[in-house]
Amino acid sequence: MDNYRTYLSESEIPTHYYNMRADMKVKPAPLLNPATMQPMTAEELSVVFCEELVKQELDDETKFVEIPEEVREYYKTFRPSPLVRAKNLEKRLGTPARIYFKFEGNNTSGSHKLNSAAAQVYYAKKQGLKGITSETGAGQWGSALAMASAHFGLDCKVYMVSSSYEQKPFRREVMRTFGADVTPSPSTTTEVGRKILREFPGTRGSLGCAISEAVEEAATREGYRYVLGSVLNQVLLHQSIIGLEAHKAFEIIGDSPDIIIGCTGGGSNLGGLIAPFMGEVLRGERNYRFIGAEPASCPSFTRGKYLYDFCDTGQICPLAKMYTLGNGFMPSPNHAGGLRFHGMSSTLSELYDQGLIEAVAYEQTEVFEAAETFARAEGILPAPESSHAIKAAIDEALKCKESGEEKVILFGLSGTGYFDLVAYEQFNSGTMTDYIPGDEDLAKGLSFVPPQPE
Amino acid sequence: MDNYRTYLSESEIPTHYYNMRADMKVKPAPLLNPATMQPMTAEELSVVFCEELVKQELDDETKFVEIPEEVREYYKTFRPSPLVRAKNLEKRLGTPARIYFKFEGNNTSGSHKLNSAAAQVYYAKKQGLKGITSETGAGQWGSALAMASAHFGLDCKVYMVSSSYEQKPFRREVMRTFGADVTPSPSTTTEVGRKILREFPGTRGSLGCAISEAVEEAATREGYRYVLGSVLNQVLLHQSIIGLEAHKAFEIIGDSPDIIIGCTGGGSNLGGLIAPFMGEVLRGERNYRFIGAEPASCPSFTRGKYLYDFCDTGQICPLAKMYTLGNGFMPSPNHAGGLRFHGMSSTLSELYDQGLIEAVAYEQTEVFEAAETFARAEGILPAPESSHAIKAAIDEALKCKESGEEKVILFGLSGTGYFDLVAYEQFNSGTMTDYIPGDEDLAKGLSFVPPQPE
Repeated sequence: MDNYRTYLSESEIPTHYYNMRADMKVKPAPLLNPATMQPMTAEELSVVFCEELVKQELDDETKFVEIPEEVREYYKTFRPSPLVRAKNLEKRLGTPARIYFKFEGNNTSGSHKLNSAAAQVYYAKKQGLKGITSETGAGQWGSALAMASAHFGLDCKVYMVSSSYEQKPFRREVMRTFGADVTPSPSTTTEVGRKILREFPGTRGSLGCAISEAVEEAATREGYRYVLGSVLNQVLLHQSIIGLEAHKAFEIIGDSPDIIIGCTGGGSNLGGLIAPFMGEVLRGERNYRFIGAEPASCPSFTRGKYLYDFCDTGQICPLAKMYTLGNGFMPSPNHAGGLRFHGMSSTLSELYDQGLIEAVAYEQTEVFEAAETFARAEGILPAPESSHAIKAAIDEALKCKESGEEKVILFGLSGTGYFDLVAYEQFNSGTMTDYIPGDEDLAKGLSFVPPQPE
Repeated sequence: MDNYRTYLSESEIPTHYYNMRADMKVKPAPLLNPATMQPMTAEELSVVFCEELVKQELDDETKFVEIPEEVREYYKTFRPSPLVRAKNLEKRLGTPARIYFKFEGNNTSGSHKLNSAAAQVYYAKKQGLKGITSETGAGQWGSALAMASAHFGLDCKVYMVSSSYEQKPFRREVMRTFGADVTPSPSTTTEVGRKILREFPGTRGSLGCAISEAVEEAATREGYRYVLGSVLNQVLLHQSIIGLEAHKAFEIIGDSPDIIIGCTGGGSNLGGLIAPFMGEVLRGERNYRFIGAEPASCPSFTRGKYLYDFCDTGQICPLAKMYTLGNGFMPSPNHAGGLRFHGMSSTLSELYDQGLIEAVAYEQTEVFEAAETFARAEGILPAPESSHAIKAAIDEALKCKESGEEKVILFGLSGTGYFDLVAYEQFNSGTMTDYIPGDEDLAKGLSFVPPQPE
């Protein structure tokens, strides 16, 4: 009998993260110091980041990085996450495909972000810091940080994108319940926040703005460092636990995916899910199709350029080479949920550029239609972000229905939608609208990109 | 190594519900027809309830009731639920006690109510009905019904207590996403709703009112029946799956509880959790302490009377013998979350009257303090309802700290608090208030109780 859910035992939780970069022949481009256009050194990065995390960020060679015992122990309070066979969805679609999802959203933070928050807060604590600063968009990362900080006993200061702060006051209360201090961004408490407010009066913020504010506070406050929930190599490293567990679960089941799908904002969810599978591809052991599903309103893979750009709107962070819409790009306010970042993980960008990853972009009403179908079939209310992956998985399953192929589809259900009911209400009431940026919007966004290195 | 979470395998999901009443020497008092003061017959009950559920309601003799294959299959999409060792909470409290909780809230409906919704909707479908009607207070039962109805393909019509409809619009959207039709209660669409609005102008509703409306619609609409999420014998029967799984999980772990704690509103959570353990007590095999934890603002066990009373405010339902505050009792509007019902399961009332169950009542700020402690330690945001049980468990664990006793405490974490952030915001901001009804409030509530049978 096929199970619905496959759980590893707690002792089977991976002991090591897997570093995809170690198997890449062409490595992701290094971060550059915008002042010198030279690769950022560990010393420079350590002003803002924890030492151990800087080491992980710059290490393209070590294939397996040990997960500290304290972090593994903490993982056991919310992991292993199940690999779920979506039998009822298959039935509704009438597809011969076997659909699986790795369910990372079943913890109070509501997403996979807790995997990296756990590691990052632990390393900050180990370094003897007082606290951490960060930003949050839809609120998942902030909630994850608040939870991990409560566990390890660290002060947690979060800048929350203003539009989410208004749309999702409840996320703020989750963070406060776990003891975090939450400020809407842009704020008047940082220099860069005041500057952004002068330049874009009335802006409801962006992840880029919030990053600038959190970085400024970390760099100027004694005993604090900045932590980031996506984009960076270190985050993809921590998130590899998703793929490692999924890979092991497939072995237990005796099945194996043909297509692996994740939604993409900064790339940590897709990067984590595909890691060990991509490793097999990079080592020439076998092939998979990898698909990144992104919003048509913030289409960094499908319509961005592969350039060096600032990771933040305030232009105080290092330059990363990535698929970017330009650090001045602001997604339309009708955009629900996360996946609002203008850029994309350098690692995923390089893999995409090499043709190893495909990408698709969806408008939000079709994404919510997929979410509703999934919810009614599988009894889980998905996050709008994750629903991009659901939409892609349904599309692939329907192609199988037409062709009669019994493909195996794995997608990442990276989060739950309990805090996205404002968007669901719009969808249920028929007032949700779509938005696709025009070429002139994209040109404007890219006009903020700095001169490229030679 | 002790695990944090113990999951049964899907094939270990119980095949039968356990009916506590079969082992009770003194049975719970039967429902009475208020017109004749005679026990309700199956025929009379079938006007409102599904046939199979009527059978279960009246059957005090069958010890094990088979769980239909379709229901077991549906359970597998969200069960087995884990039995969790609260190691981090134990550490924070510094208690020698071992604390376990059975986590029933980790599904989209947010609570244990889905266990009974699954069975009830299935039986309605099997009877060939078009749809079901019901009420919901905090929204968990309504969400559970909407989910089960989406699964089995039935029309779902929910009357939602008006105060919750306003405080928790997001629950409404969860129900709508799963295809349910939701009306705030009291409404002007039923006769009894209009009557209640005339008598209590401006009322924000109660579970009792909403029940009256849903029952009226079921009794007057072709192809519809009424389903109830708590209080009834049939619901406790379905919820016995909680205790049965917990009992089995303890066997696997090689441990056993001394104290079993559940929060109590209508009694389905406590009744389900304790069922097989109470069975052992009733059969004289061993002893446990059972504790029901209720809000001081709606204290049916600790301050109610053991009387025949209407189950609903509209006085159109049968009479049940139960601990009741009187069907006219309305909890103060500052009361957060569910547990607002004026009465209590007849089965639990009888067991309480026999001295087999203890009860404690807590004010809401101390309950939220316990919730915060639990959240920070265990990384789960608990429902306010469940937090009553957490408070009782913490109190018992602290007694062990004083006495040095290594007792084993099991409590039911019946739900998550993702939709209770308005209340958490009040708590976090220090604006939450407590309310204990005065003796005159209780006297007023009891003045609505009908004349007792001789």
